[in-house]
Amino acid sequence: MDNEEFRVLLKTLDSFNSYGEDSKRHLVDPRVDIFHGRARNDIALTAKHKELLQELGYKDHLQKVTQAIDSNQAFFDLVLAYSAQHFIPSEDDKNGDAVSPIKDEHNSIKAYLEETLGKYAQGYHAMNMDRDKVRSILKQVAREWTAEGAYERQIINKPIFEWLEKLYPDKDARKDIRIVCPGCGLGRLPFDLCTELGFQAQGNEFSFHMLLVSNFIINIMQQPNCLAVHPFVNSFSNVKSRDIQIRPVIVPDLAASQLLSESDLFSMTSGSFEHVYPLDSYKANCVVTCFFIDTANNIFRYLETIADMLSAGEHWINIGPLLWHFEDDANNIELSVDELKLVIPKFGFEIVHWESIEGVPYSSDLERMGGYRYDVEFWVAKKV
Amino acid sequence: MDNEEFRVLLKTLDSFNSYGEDSKRHLVDPRVDIFHGRARNDIALTAKHKELLQELGYKDHLQKVTQAIDSNQAFFDLVLAYSAQHFIPSEDDKNGDAVSPIKDEHNSIKAYLEETLGKYAQGYHAMNMDRDKVRSILKQVAREWTAEGAYERQIINKPIFEWLEKLYPDKDARKDIRIVCPGCGLGRLPFDLCTELGFQAQGNEFSFHMLLVSNFIINIMQQPNCLAVHPFVNSFSNVKSRDIQIRPVIVPDLAASQLLSESDLFSMTSGSFEHVYPLDSYKANCVVTCFFIDTANNIFRYLETIADMLSAGEHWINIGPLLWHFEDDANNIELSVDELKLVIPKFGFEIVHWESIEGVPYSSDLERMGGYRYDVEFWVAKKV
Repeated sequence: MDNEEFRVLLKTLDSFNSYGEDSKRHLVDPRVDIFHGRARNDIALTAKHKELLQELGYKDHLQKVTQAIDSNQAFFDLVLAYSAQHFIPSEDDKNGDAVSPIKDEHNSIKAYLEETLGKYAQGYHAMNMDRDKVRSILKQVAREWTAEGAYERQIINKPIFEWLEKLYPDKDARKDIRIVCPGCGLGRLPFDLCTELGFQAQGNEFSFHMLLVSNFIINIMQQPNCLAVHPFVNSFSNVKSRDIQIRPVIVPDLAASQLLSESDLFSMTSGSFEHVYPLDSYKANCVVTCFFIDTANNIFRYLETIADMLSAGEHWINIGPLLWHFEDDANNIELSVDELKLVIPKFGFEIVHWESIEGVPYSSDLERMGGYRYDVEFWVAKKV
Repeated sequence: MDNEEFRVLLKTLDSFNSYGEDSKRHLVDPRVDIFHGRARNDIALTAKHKELLQELGYKDHLQKVTQAIDSNQAFFDLVLAYSAQHFIPSEDDKNGDAVSPIKDEHNSIKAYLEETLGKYAQGYHAMNMDRDKVRSILKQVAREWTAEGAYERQIINKPIFEWLEKLYPDKDARKDIRIVCPGCGLGRLPFDLCTELGFQAQGNEFSFHMLLVSNFIINIMQQPNCLAVHPFVNSFSNVKSRDIQIRPVIVPDLAASQLLSESDLFSMTSGSFEHVYPLDSYKANCVVTCFFIDTANNIFRYLETIADMLSAGEHWINIGPLLWHFEDDANNIELSVDELKLVIPKFGFEIVHWESIEGVPYSSDLERMGGYRYDVEFWVAKKV
């Protein structure tokens, strides 16, 4: 593992490990302080206000928020205990000079982390961006691996699945068709392509946050419905009732490892899509990009890579918005829908279908009063 | 003017004055750099990629973005030239010792600003938060004072207006009914209550950004449809075509100063709602809060203030979400809908109507592919 990769991994592990402490410090402690009139900016609660808060069960609620955070930390502790070892470099790996591999004398991941973090400067510790990712991965878990997420998944899967069934009507032949899903998050889409439709499918993901959690859910967890997480605990706003914030979801809705145990249809790759593909050992027959292409710095390179992965007559299916991820850093090219329609054919594709689907939620809390709704573009392009 | 108020005013004026330069530095310059391969993080455009960008008119578009920014700056220059003088303290005012009043020898607001900013430390200059406010006020202008905003306004106004017409069916008598609208933004709601329904209405606003622009639009501009602003220029994402980003809106859709010239129905107050009200010189008969109550640090104090403004039998009408503005700073009490229903009666109100209205946009670009949609709570409460 090279030095920079190790730095990102260590920040990621730290953010999982310190989620609970950090969340309580930001969500619970200041609200307790407000109640007791010792907040940095006092909001001047009177005796009557405090009495009302008591009646509403304000402190009980903060207690429940604390418990929900603890439950999330317990989930991340399991991810660290069972999944992190597959990512932390060992002494046998070829490592950069600033990499600290895990050794036999480390009795646990926590012990390794504690010792290792102590040796490194601030840049190797979790930053706000890493903490944001930990919080948002809880919602990603709800989207991908719970029954509650079925509604969101179904909206997006429907047009993809319909087209795949049209392109590959012979179900028995699908086991020889390889579909690659770049930026697959926690891997549910390629998993469903295998288990529901019978294709070979390979997910690809770059983020250590995603990889650690998807490995845990897909490869480690043996039973469905065995862990509770509280994905919505981090926001106090826009709720009809307090319970909305602290309600759990049950993970996973099905046991991936069981369903995949006698199948070799499913696989995952880690690393940057543009660097991993085309992959000599896994010639794709189809590429499905879902909420992915707007993660490009250079969208043209994405298009080139997808084109390089496919042979003439094979298909690329896309669904997602154009909310360019690096827009705020001005470190990408943002294309409009019209421009994509002009550009895609220049990379060797014929556009065979294009439609817009409006008002789509993505890892949203559907019980909240409002949220972001995407209008997504769905297209099918054939390599010529 | 006290020292802190002056500091906030100066930051505000600076943010209006430097909007154009700042926007070009963040929106245009780095994208030109990307094209020329001299960006901080190079995205490795090949000759083919550059050729495609040329074909798509990438640099032409950046030119148009620049023009749109310049047009917005021209609008803010007018706001500064005609509206700022009503807010900058003069030598005759009672001023704090750190306040620099405007003097006769300042030939223009720009000259005053340039000289004054030079004398003060960083804390008196525009910060990122001030710049965010300038960008978002362009969208607020589109919502409140353009024909394009009519759709958004109408969704929110409809239930309010229907209830006011029910409560005050005698149109002739409305000129003696005083409605206060706390947090009225650019003042369109109280303006419409006067000109469409015939009430007396008083807007209240705390933000200098809002006050400077609303004063300019309502009191200074003499003609409808005379200025173009480009409220959507600051985002490159989620557009069907490039033109969506750079399209103008025409301000104002009607000339408020003309319509109000022979009327004394409309007025505005500036300052924090809780400090201004109840106002001895303006006894309210009705309070209308619109996208306002979640701006409270202490929602109970808001409720007390509204209750103090009204006499028995008079009404408070509310519409808006519960997206508590100070949640991220943990510097407020966040109540749920259920809790508000329990608490409001404790402040001397009887709830006479309550409903939820779903999927409401607020200062949103409706031509974009997606955006935030609010589920708002609408209620009518009678002071007992």
